[in-house]
Amino acid sequence: MSSQPSFPAERLPTIRRIMRPQDANIMGTIFGGTILSEIDLAAAIEAHTHHPGNVVTVAMDKIEFHKPIFVGDLVSIFTETLSIGRTSIRIRVCVWAERRGRRDTCVPVTEAQVTMVAVDEQFNPVPIDKHSTVADSPHPTGG
Amino acid sequence: MSSQPSFPAERLPTIRRIMRPQDANIMGTIFGGTILSEIDLAAAIEAHTHHPGNVVTVAMDKIEFHKPIFVGDLVSIFTETLSIGRTSIRIRVCVWAERRGRRDTCVPVTEAQVTMVAVDEQFNPVPIDKHSTVADSPHPTGG
Amino acid sequence: MSSQPSFPAERLPTIRRIMRPQDANIMGTIFGGTILSEIDLAAAIEAHTHHPGNVVTVAMDKIEFHKPIFVGDLVSIFTETLSIGRTSIRIRVCVWAERRGRRDTCVPVTEAQVTMVAVDEQFNPVPIDKHSTVADSPHPTGG
Amino acid sequence: MSSQPSFPAERLPTIRRIMRPQDANIMGTIFGGTILSEIDLAAAIEAHTHHPGNVVTVAMDKIEFHKPIFVGDLVSIFTETLSIGRTSIRIRVCVWAERRGRRDTCVPVTEAQVTMVAVDEQFNPVPIDKHSTVADSPHPTGG
Amino acid sequence: MSSQPSFPAERLPTIRRIMRPQDANIMGTIFGGTILSEIDLAAAIEAHTHHPGNVVTVAMDKIEFHKPIFVGDLVSIFTETLSIGRTSIRIRVCVWAERRGRRDTCVPVTEAQVTMVAVDEQFNPVPIDKHSTVADSPHPTGG
Amino acid sequence: MSSQPSFPAERLPTIRRIMRPQDANIMGTIFGGTILSEIDLAAAIEAHTHHPGNVVTVAMDKIEFHKPIFVGDLVSIFTETLSIGRTSIRIRVCVWAERRGRRDTCVPVTEAQVTMVAVDEQFNPVPIDKHSTVADSPHPTGG
Repeated sequence: MSSQPSFPAERLPTIRRIMRPQDANIMGTIFGGTILSEIDLAAAIEAHTHHPGNVVTVAMDKIEFHKPIFVGDLVSIFTETLSIGRTSIRIRVCVWAERRGRRDTCVPVTEAQVTMVAVDEQFNPVPIDKHSTVADSPHPTGG
Repeated sequence: MSSQPSFPAERLPTIRRIMRPQDANIMGTIFGGTILSEIDLAAAIEAHTHHPGNVVTVAMDKIEFHKPIFVGDLVSIFTETLSIGRTSIRIRVCVWAERRGRRDTCVPVTEAQVTMVAVDEQFNPVPIDKHSTVADSPHPTGG
Repeated sequence: MSSQPSFPAERLPTIRRIMRPQDANIMGTIFGGTILSEIDLAAAIEAHTHHPGNVVTVAMDKIEFHKPIFVGDLVSIFTETLSIGRTSIRIRVCVWAERRGRRDTCVPVTEAQVTMVAVDEQFNPVPIDKHSTVADSPHPTGG
Repeated sequence: MSSQPSFPAERLPTIRRIMRPQDANIMGTIFGGTILSEIDLAAAIEAHTHHPGNVVTVAMDKIEFHKPIFVGDLVSIFTETLSIGRTSIRIRVCVWAERRGRRDTCVPVTEAQVTMVAVDEQFNPVPIDKHSTVADSPHPTGG
Repeated sequence: MSSQPSFPAERLPTIRRIMRPQDANIMGTIFGGTILSEIDLAAAIEAHTHHPGNVVTVAMDKIEFHKPIFVGDLVSIFTETLSIGRTSIRIRVCVWAERRGRRDTCVPVTEAQVTMVAVDEQFNPVPIDKHSTVADSPHPTGG
Repeated sequence: MSSQPSFPAERLPTIRRIMRPQDANIMGTIFGGTILSEIDLAAAIEAHTHHPGNVVTVAMDKIEFHKPIFVGDLVSIFTETLSIGRTSIRIRVCVWAERRGRRDTCVPVTEAQVTMVAVDEQFNPVPIDKHSTVADSPHPTGG
């Protein structure tokens, strides 16, 4: 495929993990729900760079599964902020797979757009705020 | 909300399960990935009514998370076939939650559209076929 | 089997889910513990229709595994209240499997009787009460 | 309770494990399905001392949950063969909990009777046989 | 191996459980992380015999994986306290596997040394104390 | 701590994932076994850059848990090959945590040394080989 994008080796993946047998579906390939879960987590991590407080997913769109992912593949998930509204953030998520036994073969497998909204403790929208915090920090001894 | 749709009590849910503490995210509500996984499974079950052989998810769209889901909620997932193409099937998925401790309070929480494609063992598309089978039946003693 | 009961298609299953590879035992069939877990959850859902507050399982009896369940089977669990005592509820649970690739083949696979007891926060029995509630509702925004 | 049985410290537990937060239900105690799963596994281990080949659970009875189990409890499961038929084995399973932070407090929490049947690869009953083997040994290098 | 140690049948294993398909890695043997998790849990159980309050793992050393472990193996983990310091405890952990289908074949498969430290609620070291307790007991009804 | 190493932002983490409630132990911090599992996976990924065929973990050493990890932390795991022998590879693994709600606070939390050995299908050691492959590739359609 001449127009195939190349792996963004210079960028920091938001999530990167190996696919395990526990992630497989009945056909032996990786269960779609496993990838959708990682996409949701990656979008939240990206959103937190703009709003450290609580965020929730309100919409996902344009999810395309281009190719199957296999047990043993090393999956890298890249995120990019598309736009920031008053209370919401739109994020693009791209999933790449480095094939097991042939790590130099790296292909884009899935992509999605995710909209996240900043919320308070009652799940009401609040303005995006770089200086927001999580109300109940579970970190007694800090960094 | 005057136009709120009412729970389709006369229809058979494709999936129906209780949300457990293990399904929660850091805010204590149900993790989006849990619901996305169930949506993917429900769409496959619906697709199998048209094509018993292997199907894969190729796209998801218009996923909207209307309200949070909580631990203890009883979740029902309804599916509906929107269209059947030569090799693909488009399915609408609606997720309802009966709230814990107040089962009569039942609200639509999430919806999505899923496109599934019938495939052979090499993951190449094949025509939708009511009489297709899974190549390697794991049922030694049948029904 | 001429006397085989037929699938109660007109009834709402209490739980309904697809069996995944993660549910299998070393023989490749579904692990008994997976089914027992679903039976326990289904009985609690049924008990909550009579007592929305906390309930615990105190006994299970007459559990019969008639046939193996396989990965890919769509399992429906039906519940029925047998009797309601002052603090306890006896429930009958029936598990049916629609076989993968042959959804029209639907067989009863497991059944059980479960006794649940309504309890307070210290796990002491309390009278069954339609208007009981869970003490600490985790639903900030309600339905 | 004057007649309380004492912990069988001289016997080898068939299973012994610590209860983790992941094993809890919505009330914070251990999920019944977790214990039922361990009972099923323990009964299979006991049955394998008489028949190393494949066995399946066909019935469970007299399951009594005497007391709740808590996160952090150390659970020991003891098994005892009650009778051996031509193709089936009846097993008694007793579950004890050593309480977290007070390991000297050890109480019987659950008991059950399990009937297991020896089966061939097609799940048909076969005679109990001390010298039976698993057809497809996954142990390339042996002990 | 002439010097092979024999299974310590007279000792009480700290943990004992069967390896399930869910514990396997891509090669079909048991995932190292599964065993490391059990070693960590076993060391904490041993440490709690000296200090019932909170303990954390600060170091692990000399972990040796002698032989692969297989699905279906019955794994016993033995622990032994090597030394007790003012705030820390050093523990030796030995893992044995009874092979599936040949339970009389029992081999040492993994060993490790673990150092645990007694800590307060802020994760600061505190002296080892036989009479320490967990601050927030989750046991409303006790033993 | 003046000598504190700084986060290697220019390096590609071998694994990078967010810690979820499901990864916690009874104290609410991340379970040691979760981190040990990721260390084992990361070492295997590093080893595969030298030997794409099967590798197994034979030893782990100098594992130090410097600080607790919390739910919501974003964990990055860096690997470095220390030495390559005829059949074995020694790898250094460093784990960093970016704290939830304060992603700019990034601390080294755990480190370890792992020795992996290249093996054939019978788990016998084989020479390290850049051109080795996995015997049974599960990738029908390739990259």
